[in-house]
Amino acid sequence: MFDALFTPERVLAELSDRAFVQAMLDAERALARAEAAVGAIPVSAADEIARACDAALYDADRIAVEARSAGNPAEPLVRALRAQVGGEAAAHVHLGATSQDIVDTASMLVARRVLPLLLEDIDAIAAACAALARTHRATPMAARTLQQQALPTTFGLKAAGWLVGVLEARRLVVAADGRLAVQLGGAAGTLAALGEHGPAVVAGMAHELGLAEPTLPWHTDRARVAELGAALLAITNAIAKVAGDIVLLAQTEVAEVAEPLDGRGGSSTLPHKRNPVGSTLALANARRVEAHVSLLTGGGPHEHERAAGAWHAEWDGLEGALAACTGAADSMRGVLEGLAVRPGQMRRNLDLTRGLIMAERVETLCAERIGRAEAKRIVTGAARAATEGGVPFGEVLDADPDVPLTPDEIAAALDPLGYLGSAGLFVDRALALYSESAPSG
Amino acid sequence: MFDALFTPERVLAELSDRAFVQAMLDAERALARAEAAVGAIPVSAADEIARACDAALYDADRIAVEARSAGNPAEPLVRALRAQVGGEAAAHVHLGATSQDIVDTASMLVARRVLPLLLEDIDAIAAACAALARTHRATPMAARTLQQQALPTTFGLKAAGWLVGVLEARRLVVAADGRLAVQLGGAAGTLAALGEHGPAVVAGMAHELGLAEPTLPWHTDRARVAELGAALLAITNAIAKVAGDIVLLAQTEVAEVAEPLDGRGGSSTLPHKRNPVGSTLALANARRVEAHVSLLTGGGPHEHERAAGAWHAEWDGLEGALAACTGAADSMRGVLEGLAVRPGQMRRNLDLTRGLIMAERVETLCAERIGRAEAKRIVTGAARAATEGGVPFGEVLDADPDVPLTPDEIAAALDPLGYLGSAGLFVDRALALYSESAPSG
Amino acid sequence: MFDALFTPERVLAELSDRAFVQAMLDAERALARAEAAVGAIPVSAADEIARACDAALYDADRIAVEARSAGNPAEPLVRALRAQVGGEAAAHVHLGATSQDIVDTASMLVARRVLPLLLEDIDAIAAACAALARTHRATPMAARTLQQQALPTTFGLKAAGWLVGVLEARRLVVAADGRLAVQLGGAAGTLAALGEHGPAVVAGMAHELGLAEPTLPWHTDRARVAELGAALLAITNAIAKVAGDIVLLAQTEVAEVAEPLDGRGGSSTLPHKRNPVGSTLALANARRVEAHVSLLTGGGPHEHERAAGAWHAEWDGLEGALAACTGAADSMRGVLEGLAVRPGQMRRNLDLTRGLIMAERVETLCAERIGRAEAKRIVTGAARAATEGGVPFGEVLDADPDVPLTPDEIAAALDPLGYLGSAGLFVDRALALYSESAPSG
Amino acid sequence: MFDALFTPERVLAELSDRAFVQAMLDAERALARAEAAVGAIPVSAADEIARACDAALYDADRIAVEARSAGNPAEPLVRALRAQVGGEAAAHVHLGATSQDIVDTASMLVARRVLPLLLEDIDAIAAACAALARTHRATPMAARTLQQQALPTTFGLKAAGWLVGVLEARRLVVAADGRLAVQLGGAAGTLAALGEHGPAVVAGMAHELGLAEPTLPWHTDRARVAELGAALLAITNAIAKVAGDIVLLAQTEVAEVAEPLDGRGGSSTLPHKRNPVGSTLALANARRVEAHVSLLTGGGPHEHERAAGAWHAEWDGLEGALAACTGAADSMRGVLEGLAVRPGQMRRNLDLTRGLIMAERVETLCAERIGRAEAKRIVTGAARAATEGGVPFGEVLDADPDVPLTPDEIAAALDPLGYLGSAGLFVDRALALYSESAPSG
Repeated sequence: MFDALFTPERVLAELSDRAFVQAMLDAERALARAEAAVGAIPVSAADEIARACDAALYDADRIAVEARSAGNPAEPLVRALRAQVGGEAAAHVHLGATSQDIVDTASMLVARRVLPLLLEDIDAIAAACAALARTHRATPMAARTLQQQALPTTFGLKAAGWLVGVLEARRLVVAADGRLAVQLGGAAGTLAALGEHGPAVVAGMAHELGLAEPTLPWHTDRARVAELGAALLAITNAIAKVAGDIVLLAQTEVAEVAEPLDGRGGSSTLPHKRNPVGSTLALANARRVEAHVSLLTGGGPHEHERAAGAWHAEWDGLEGALAACTGAADSMRGVLEGLAVRPGQMRRNLDLTRGLIMAERVETLCAERIGRAEAKRIVTGAARAATEGGVPFGEVLDADPDVPLTPDEIAAALDPLGYLGSAGLFVDRALALYSESAPSG
Repeated sequence: MFDALFTPERVLAELSDRAFVQAMLDAERALARAEAAVGAIPVSAADEIARACDAALYDADRIAVEARSAGNPAEPLVRALRAQVGGEAAAHVHLGATSQDIVDTASMLVARRVLPLLLEDIDAIAAACAALARTHRATPMAARTLQQQALPTTFGLKAAGWLVGVLEARRLVVAADGRLAVQLGGAAGTLAALGEHGPAVVAGMAHELGLAEPTLPWHTDRARVAELGAALLAITNAIAKVAGDIVLLAQTEVAEVAEPLDGRGGSSTLPHKRNPVGSTLALANARRVEAHVSLLTGGGPHEHERAAGAWHAEWDGLEGALAACTGAADSMRGVLEGLAVRPGQMRRNLDLTRGLIMAERVETLCAERIGRAEAKRIVTGAARAATEGGVPFGEVLDADPDVPLTPDEIAAALDPLGYLGSAGLFVDRALALYSESAPSG
Repeated sequence: MFDALFTPERVLAELSDRAFVQAMLDAERALARAEAAVGAIPVSAADEIARACDAALYDADRIAVEARSAGNPAEPLVRALRAQVGGEAAAHVHLGATSQDIVDTASMLVARRVLPLLLEDIDAIAAACAALARTHRATPMAARTLQQQALPTTFGLKAAGWLVGVLEARRLVVAADGRLAVQLGGAAGTLAALGEHGPAVVAGMAHELGLAEPTLPWHTDRARVAELGAALLAITNAIAKVAGDIVLLAQTEVAEVAEPLDGRGGSSTLPHKRNPVGSTLALANARRVEAHVSLLTGGGPHEHERAAGAWHAEWDGLEGALAACTGAADSMRGVLEGLAVRPGQMRRNLDLTRGLIMAERVETLCAERIGRAEAKRIVTGAARAATEGGVPFGEVLDADPDVPLTPDEIAAALDPLGYLGSAGLFVDRALALYSESAPSG
Repeated sequence: MFDALFTPERVLAELSDRAFVQAMLDAERALARAEAAVGAIPVSAADEIARACDAALYDADRIAVEARSAGNPAEPLVRALRAQVGGEAAAHVHLGATSQDIVDTASMLVARRVLPLLLEDIDAIAAACAALARTHRATPMAARTLQQQALPTTFGLKAAGWLVGVLEARRLVVAADGRLAVQLGGAAGTLAALGEHGPAVVAGMAHELGLAEPTLPWHTDRARVAELGAALLAITNAIAKVAGDIVLLAQTEVAEVAEPLDGRGGSSTLPHKRNPVGSTLALANARRVEAHVSLLTGGGPHEHERAAGAWHAEWDGLEGALAACTGAADSMRGVLEGLAVRPGQMRRNLDLTRGLIMAERVETLCAERIGRAEAKRIVTGAARAATEGGVPFGEVLDADPDVPLTPDEIAAALDPLGYLGSAGLFVDRALALYSESAPSG
């Protein structure tokens, strides 16, 4: 519904029925050329076929309607292609192939064309996360576990976490891209109609199309489709992690970040709202990816040499997963490239507990002097007193004669900046990984 | 991808972006009229708004693109509607409503329009199953458990099982239809902008649109959406059960049924094939329904008064579930209305085990005379001898002096028609349920 | 893993292997009695069988191990039961039934025993929500859409929304309970081995066990299992909605509610933390329910008269769904019965935007005097000025000569209590529904 | 339910609560040792802690119960461990760690211990598939698409397809194993309580446990858990493909293979049945893996520095996925190592269409002499005549003067053995991949 709401139009163009028709025609052309190269059909026939392999010559809507009785879109397309080619050459169209060969190869081609668009957005997201990690390496904020403030961290470390998540998932996308393979097996997976030429035609077709050559025809070995699905889900999850954190950080009561004001997310009737629209669409797209990918990774085995249904359900799943995943990436790129970060508000929130967030540290320091058990007793009591009395933790500690720390030591202990542990170092590790991973260094 | 491959065009028309725009406009018109009725806006303004509520006046594609920055399609549509209405009346457009009110109400309207098309197919499927059950009430065939022949049953009982499954799920679809409700809560669910008129406007709008009036605005109580999803999945599962059985029964080696030869499923290169295309598409659609419905029933709670993402992911889920479910129903209606049933082949398959399929019965008869333990020993031995020797079970039994049955008794015991238990009676029960359930009796 | 972490022990006892063995034995006993009642087996045999139907006589662990080669737990249990009964009566054990009959009937019995425990917690949750709705009918708080403050609402209306969600889902649980039916079909679903007694034995067995009598044996019509799954998911979703809202409201920065301090959720090292442990476990259980229910509602049709795998996967799904659903309900009951609600903090958060949250209302009031377009222009400008200048919205409005409101009118317009629309009335509707629905009124 | 039904006991032992307690203790011991190594705690304390890290000293059931109020099992275990250690050393237990560190690290250890058991079964499955591919390289059988016989293939090629699927998925399992990493971040992911020692302790702990060292603590970057889940699903899918094919091939009417008769799958009351119990359990386990893995790969992002629910739902998902995946592998290993293959029956089935399955080949041969259009017309007509007349295809062809082939040529054309294309070669490619992949060659 309203595809352009969720997915950028440049991607939708690659996922249109017309683009799929073109991809099927690309498969037919490559098949003909590979067959001509080994002498299975005349070169002139391959040339004629190649000329007819232009989607502009076909009516994608009509092919969809006719596909309903055939059960797949290759069958009516091959008929139309034969009619378009005409004459002797028509007999050489689709030689030795089955509909599934064409549909599967076309699916791979479509994925091959969408993935660079996706990777572009992924790289922009990674770059934006890296910049945030670098800039905010020492910007303190509250770490939150189960949505409760736990201890100080830095916004740089949070961004570094996003970055590592994106980089690790990117690796899977690249690997899945490398697994995209030509499919050619004929009706039974034996390439019987090609006689001894089978493997050579597969290799030639793969070469023509820039796809990998599989060990075997993969009619019912859907592992590479599932791997692609798993990779799309992985990168979407990494993106959704960023989106989810931003929605939480952008809450009116937290207000530590805000999505860019580029005409989006404003509300005319509610002028104080700055809706996190980009993150919201990313999260919506993430759910959609998960649903679509379930059609690629699950649902039971494909029977024998072609599944009755499981295969057909993949088409929609693949298109939907690519659309929603790229939609999520595009939205989050926009969000991250213009994200407003508010260090002052991060600091204000860090002070909300009036020092209690540092109790672990105070206890540790006390323990060094009076043992852990005694330290725990004293600090827990002070924390309770602070909470119940609504008094700053520091004041309670200062006033408690059992606390084995000087006022200066207490003040230092309550400074979040002094209790960031390895946060900076972890940021550096993430940025080092980014330097190694980034395509252009 | 290739929507018309999976879903009949009459349904796709109700699920198009343009149809959704019209449904949103229907919601706005009903809102304006209900507000005019209680005096919240002038009647003349409601009339002007109503005149502008025609999807032909708007560009659905442009709304989709603009919706990307707003995060939903109602926002750009309301802007376009205000511009179309113009003048003083424009200020009365969308009064007191929020985008979600319009999108949710429109979703309900779309469902309301598609469900009758679905029910039509469901009723045709039920009628076809009932006819098969009636016709084949006494047609013996093998029952199969874990895909192994177990005992005789009848094709009538199998069809009766399909029928009961469809009738029970139909009940859920009708119930979900009755739960389709108007949504109107305003930005916070309080209808604050309507002052004291809130509940009256909700009631009026519901009346205008023929939708139920909910107890509360349901921005983040998605139960009725989930119920619709669960009902669509239930009826799809009932349909897929039929499809799955037919694919198995149509196997070359089983050949007990065949899909109708209405130009579908034939293979020009493989002339002996009669592909179960309709059942295949139904099974593919069933997987798609499951994936889409997961967006309606799962994925975690909707936050506060509007979810950031979970709500937006529903739109695609609902449309996809309706499309795939109706697609499955349409396919199976076609299959069942023309299904070729082959009682002779059913009988031949029943004889494949050369009597062994009746061993349970023979054992029971023997047990009545010589006790169960002895009967079991003798019959198990005879069965093994028959299997290993490749001899008909009857011959082994005839030759075995320990078998306490006469040759005539043995022959009778091996007749599948004599061991159908309550099959006929169960068929009658299913047909009685059908008579009660059928809309027209 | 660590079942008792997620599910109360009183429920785990009903879901243990031993409890399932007892449920299978209950099915066998009821079968024997029903058969004796129609004369299919001797009454004395039924009595002997009944005496042996006590789980304490069997080793559940051994049955599990032996079940691996049979493929189901009924097969080894029936063998053990026959051995336990011994003598002539042993031959009458399990007469005419198949393993699936026993396992399916036992599953229904287990569900029948767990659902009252679940309903008890559901009713306590509903009661707690109703109490919160009543108490806080006029407690103002911020409504939040996309996690941004939108307009004022009341905590009572929020609780009323939880209440309606729970009540509507409760209805589905009760309906699913009523659908729990005995399963008895024999190896082929024809009850052939029972001769003419089939239907009477089914009815008798249903009566013995207090389960519904199905139209047909339902070996591969899994609709009632799916309905139970859908109902469990529905009630879990209603519960998870409460849990999700509470986790958000309990955030350190929001702090409008807190889970009860009953020894849970405290952190010794982080004394300021009050972890929403109950809600967290409810949310975890909700995800688990969704995963388990997918085994009951999805995964494709069951083949012919017994599925090879789909059936077997249900067992774990049903047990897991019941365990996780009751776990979620138990946790949230505890949370809601002791929830700390902080109206003062709700009011403070409502004032966070310093009046901007009321801009919609100010605009509406202005529009009544100067038209909507002009009102929008003025109010939007004032809101921007307030935001950019960090000044209260009221001060900006007071100082703006174009605003057609007196200072008193402005002050009234900015009072959230004056802009709650139908919130109170909606609370009353929810409470009325509760009065009608509540088992004891 | 009845875990031992689905999963071998040697695996269940590694997945028990007690095994998880041991894994958590292993994590604590490694933490203490790593801390002692850098001087963060005394070596003597680490020694005392190590001595207490024995699961036999703790009550796993009690920890489960206590975990309900803490929300995780590490919290009560750490308390029990401190009590066990006692004295001064108790204060050094769990230093700087958070519960999630221990639970996540323990999960990785459990996976690390189960994966070798899984890989053993995978390797046995691969070996069995390779043996079948080799043995049946030239055993003709029908290829089936949409469950209809399409063209001849070989059983060797089918087994080669299973083999490649298993080998490719095995690769993912090994990769996921290599990604299993220690988790140590402390309450905020900064390791603040370890001062400058943080990274060194992480490295030391990883070394102690033989786990990978992650770039960052991964509290809410669940990518490696999702990768493990995706790999388990991938190998399960590869296994389920084999199981699904075997169930179909073992149908009474097809009877081309049968599961081994090792006391399993026999039916005493139905002696002719040889239930494919192993494949059935593998298919059931495959569905269970899919459901459990959905808890690892989906369900939305983990919030901030620890998720409220999403994390807790993983535990059950991981345990369940490991249990069901190993269960599937163990079952199929048993099936494949004893699979009965019936080449004679394969050949009989191949002859079921009485030559029609070779029509594509006949058409191709005719086309070489009389052009494709004319060949198609003649062969289609002959096929129809054969079907309608119930006559062997060869007889029709012999009698048709338009067929441009001699009787000998027709006979040769109808021989399936002459139309196997690249089947043998593909088998060789799969075996070559196996030789490269096999751990021991």
